[in-house]
Amino acid sequence: MTSAFQKIEEANAEAVDRMLSGDPVLVDVVPAAQAIPNLRDRMILHAGPMIEWEHMCGPMRGAITGIAVFEGWAADLAEAERMSAAGAFDFWPNHDFDAVGPMTGMTTAGQFVMVVENRAFGNRAYCTVNEGLGKVMRFGGNDAEVRSRLAWLRDEFAPAMGRALRLSNGIALKPLVARGLTMGDEMHQRNAAGTGLVLRALAPALAATARNSGTLSRALSFIAGNDQFFLNIAMAMGKAIMDPVRGIEASSVVTAMTRNGTDFGIRVSGTGDAWFTAPVEMPEGLYFPGYTEDDANPDMGDSTIVETIGLGGFAMAAAPAVAGFVGAGAASEAVEFTRRMGEISCASNPEWTIPILDYVGVPTGIDVRLVVETGLAPTINTGIAHKNPGIGQVGAGVVRAPLACFEQALRALAARLGVS
Amino acid sequence: MTSAFQKIEEANAEAVDRMLSGDPVLVDVVPAAQAIPNLRDRMILHAGPMIEWEHMCGPMRGAITGIAVFEGWAADLAEAERMSAAGAFDFWPNHDFDAVGPMTGMTTAGQFVMVVENRAFGNRAYCTVNEGLGKVMRFGGNDAEVRSRLAWLRDEFAPAMGRALRLSNGIALKPLVARGLTMGDEMHQRNAAGTGLVLRALAPALAATARNSGTLSRALSFIAGNDQFFLNIAMAMGKAIMDPVRGIEASSVVTAMTRNGTDFGIRVSGTGDAWFTAPVEMPEGLYFPGYTEDDANPDMGDSTIVETIGLGGFAMAAAPAVAGFVGAGAASEAVEFTRRMGEISCASNPEWTIPILDYVGVPTGIDVRLVVETGLAPTINTGIAHKNPGIGQVGAGVVRAPLACFEQALRALAARLGVS
Repeated sequence: MTSAFQKIEEANAEAVDRMLSGDPVLVDVVPAAQAIPNLRDRMILHAGPMIEWEHMCGPMRGAITGIAVFEGWAADLAEAERMSAAGAFDFWPNHDFDAVGPMTGMTTAGQFVMVVENRAFGNRAYCTVNEGLGKVMRFGGNDAEVRSRLAWLRDEFAPAMGRALRLSNGIALKPLVARGLTMGDEMHQRNAAGTGLVLRALAPALAATARNSGTLSRALSFIAGNDQFFLNIAMAMGKAIMDPVRGIEASSVVTAMTRNGTDFGIRVSGTGDAWFTAPVEMPEGLYFPGYTEDDANPDMGDSTIVETIGLGGFAMAAAPAVAGFVGAGAASEAVEFTRRMGEISCASNPEWTIPILDYVGVPTGIDVRLVVETGLAPTINTGIAHKNPGIGQVGAGVVRAPLACFEQALRALAARLGVS
Repeated sequence: MTSAFQKIEEANAEAVDRMLSGDPVLVDVVPAAQAIPNLRDRMILHAGPMIEWEHMCGPMRGAITGIAVFEGWAADLAEAERMSAAGAFDFWPNHDFDAVGPMTGMTTAGQFVMVVENRAFGNRAYCTVNEGLGKVMRFGGNDAEVRSRLAWLRDEFAPAMGRALRLSNGIALKPLVARGLTMGDEMHQRNAAGTGLVLRALAPALAATARNSGTLSRALSFIAGNDQFFLNIAMAMGKAIMDPVRGIEASSVVTAMTRNGTDFGIRVSGTGDAWFTAPVEMPEGLYFPGYTEDDANPDMGDSTIVETIGLGGFAMAAAPAVAGFVGAGAASEAVEFTRRMGEISCASNPEWTIPILDYVGVPTGIDVRLVVETGLAPTINTGIAHKNPGIGQVGAGVVRAPLACFEQALRALAARLGVS
């Protein structure tokens, strides 16, 4: 008779195999309503697990009112706020609609989403285009400048990027990430290399398909001017890789980690689509000039899907320069983060390796058992939003996933398997 | 009375100050004859110190015959070879004409050169556009395919790049290199990041100035498809930085290192424009499939100007991934190369730092005294050419500068200073 331990080990081997055999390709940029047919009018997808208006944090509320005005559902932010409180909008997690979004993570029918197809499994995942840095909607920005950038993305940039991707038959993301790891990126708080590699892959096709030189020049400038452009691609890639790993009976591998600015939630393969949540923690980090930790909102966003696949805080060794940016200590200590995350992971990824570690692969397949046994919480590299609506990013830091999520998940898995 | 030791120390402080205060900016791409008015018809500038036809190695001869056909001075390679042997061409080192060139380093009037201006000193340096990898003229390739690529560079690419640079007011190279060092480049055998950063800086202006979408798409593809595109820019930058350091009385700082495939030569600030030469060594490295060390030509090219300014083999710690490519051992040992080169250098560069060394700067200002005292020769990351004309690159490796050059230079400097 197979022991519970053996069952879990076999299930986790299957989970890791599915993760490593994923073949994510950035294939298109399309209207969100086309990619996600169930995304109806007045529906707002947000980051993190399910949450109602009354429990949302400041920047999440800021983004919701902003996107409602952008979509034409409210005349101004004040009306959008009244309508939100009155239940005029349906709020749902991105994760329930094959999507992810950074920070507040607004996904609505009138925006465009990038499409990553996992060609090994046939599933697709979606994420909006990264808006750039500073006062942007993902950090709770919502004024006319923020909304007009979203309009430009919808009306000019996203269709141009979609045409270029269709001409080029997509961009294979596994080799691109492998390369980025040799160029100092960890794909969460540092995407300078990934952004450049996407520009290199896309620029010729953008040139060949652009409607005019103004559109083209603006599109190239936008990508070139935003070091975090690749983040949203990495996130859609993470979702595309992890979705086929869901629902493997007895597997203790984490399939999603996410936060809505109020709660942190995880999903585990063997417990299906249940969320295990706990109050989200505050990042520890460094603040932009003029801001302090008093301004900070608790941690937020679906971007932790990047750590779920072994990047971000798990790949810190690849990105010594990011250690300083997120206030995680000396650059030479970055390797320790990756070594620690190896202790809570089932495997290492032979295709995503880190030169300075003599090509050891990134830690892959977070095992809730190992997290609970060691007490080592997944380390996440994150941006920090201002706690009030309408302001934007104020810093960057490191945050730990709350251990309570993993303890709950392990108890639920044990109950399913009939062990204690 | 000032001792010779004090004189040298003060002179070297001045030399390092000039190196660190250099402000190299890539400003233009222009016909070589315009940039270098003394570059006349039937004149061929080559890499390394002065050399005559009868002493040239195979790939150098291959490139010379190829460029003679390209320039229309000979009907075919055989005629070019006869003309070369008969003294029909004037051969001069690039270094004597404000220029540098990788490997064989062909510079002739009918090509275009990139222009790097050192804005702190007003001098300019020139280098042709990098042709790409494999069978190319810098590695001795000379057939119709090689020459037609040079024609395309001259007729389409270089003018387009020049227009874009003029529109964008140039690209400041110091911050670009600083960034590249955090992205895994050492700027000699690995220029993946530098190439991407140049593309990011240049793409919008290329789009705004391109004559048509075909030209633009080809230009973007060419840059995006050649990881070594930045090498020639780094070389012109190195020349632009080092030329103002020449001729400081009593300085023992190396101002140029270069090789012509037969001899290795160095110049030292306090001994002016004299070359100190010795037979060049063979690189130790790794070969492309189908080639072995029996196919290898001895070391060649002006690209060692990159090591002269503290990059390449001196910055190996920034580029652990290159250690494997050049066969220099484990990636984790890359830091040792940089530490050793620190032992023969006067200073470290506070603006070009290496994250994994907790932001210690690259070794700067090679002191011939320290080279001779320690017996540590400068380590150079290099490409390896086939020893026969017309074939091209066969590998990459590491080579040491011959100690004899440094010993001669030190004796000459001592003689000038009246010490033994």
